Amino acid sequence: MSRHAGGGAPAVVLLSGGLDSATVLALAREAGYACHALSLDYGQRHRAELDAARRVARALGAVRHEVLSLDLARFGGSSLTDATRPLPDSAQQTGIPSTYVPARNTVMLALALSWVEALGGRDLFYGANAVDYSGYPDCRPDYVEAFERMANLATRAGVEGGHLRVHAPIIGLSKAEIIHEGLRLGVDYGLTVSCYQADAAGRACGHCASCSIRAAGFAAAGVADPTPYREA
Amino acid sequence: MSRHAGGGAPAVVLLSGGLDSATVLALAREAGYACHALSLDYGQRHRAELDAARRVARALGAVRHEVLSLDLARFGGSSLTDATRPLPDSAQQTGIPSTYVPARNTVMLALALSWVEALGGRDLFYGANAVDYSGYPDCRPDYVEAFERMANLATRAGVEGGHLRVHAPIIGLSKAEIIHEGLRLGVDYGLTVSCYQADAAGRACGHCASCSIRAAGFAAAGVADPTPYREA
Repeated sequence: MSRHAGGGAPAVVLLSGGLDSATVLALAREAGYACHALSLDYGQRHRAELDAARRVARALGAVRHEVLSLDLARFGGSSLTDATRPLPDSAQQTGIPSTYVPARNTVMLALALSWVEALGGRDLFYGANAVDYSGYPDCRPDYVEAFERMANLATRAGVEGGHLRVHAPIIGLSKAEIIHEGLRLGVDYGLTVSCYQADAAGRACGHCASCSIRAAGFAAAGVADPTPYREA
Repeated sequence: MSRHAGGGAPAVVLLSGGLDSATVLALAREAGYACHALSLDYGQRHRAELDAARRVARALGAVRHEVLSLDLARFGGSSLTDATRPLPDSAQQTGIPSTYVPARNTVMLALALSWVEALGGRDLFYGANAVDYSGYPDCRPDYVEAFERMANLATRAGVEGGHLRVHAPIIGLSKAEIIHEGLRLGVDYGLTVSCYQADAAGRACGHCASCSIRAAGFAAAGVADPTPYREA
């Protein structure tokens, strides 16, 4: 794909630095939007994720990338922001994972809404996926629709008759399907970090729930896993 | 009213430092909640508002008060965070005021949702008022209902069958009625700051839209205005 910035309507794309949101950024670019990528430094353990977001935003031609700082760890409630809580070891679990950060995705979408409204745009892109992460309440289609409805009542665009849209283009795709979409669009997944325990260089542990889901995705897609791992 | 911390269920109360949210905190206390007050330092011009929030949280017995920092000014789009844009002079305007910060209240409610979920609570208090500030899209009852619906789909509490409630107890009250409620509950409005151009000591300008609405409220309520003004 072209690395030039898109010249279309502005859109805000939530960009975590992981595989899913990188694919969504590529899809938003393909659809012609001028992509404004938004990441949140919320006290997550895996700091390398934010470096990955910066690499991905650059590689996929975001017209701007903002990393907002917000100390969600102060509220507690998640193993992802609280080093005293253990991370889950594998994807074999039921219910809501301990890595769930209370309402994190709602906070990020609200921030994306603020930005897109300031830009005069009407499109948000959200890399929710209901297949591999069905344990997260805010990755379900019902939630996305409810957020979109709220957003249209919340904002100038809604009041003035515009229609804000929350695009969740990979919500129904398997990890293998997401990977195929990304490869079609030239995404370099070696730039992305999914591991909750990645080291400072972005190398993955290979053991955590996020690593397991990701590795299984590359296997199911029938392509080589480009993830840098810490150990063989 | 008692100044002791409430012993009831945890609730998160959005606290701006202004008259409306101080009243809402008093109402939440009266209803028996253990009130967790949340303020946002989002780059607003009127920094004295945050000092006022600290005074009010203490005076009205919040069990905890958090002031989160978040640089919404980076997105632009509002005279309240952009010193190059003029503030409105009076309340005589139509449409959405220039002081509207894109999706600010949605961001604050999302943060409140994160905190209340981490606390295991289910109650949010929001000082929206549809009477005096009808120009703000996110102060309308439809918006509050849509946020509540989204919040129940977003969270553990919603998935597990709990019901989150967004209380907006003053949404239909006039400013005079709000003041009467607060005085009944012992709110000291001299501690609050509404002015967009308050000085560092919290003294109001007496001229901006927010000052006009506030002064008219005390006049209509038939009580003395305790606001400290910069000039006679």
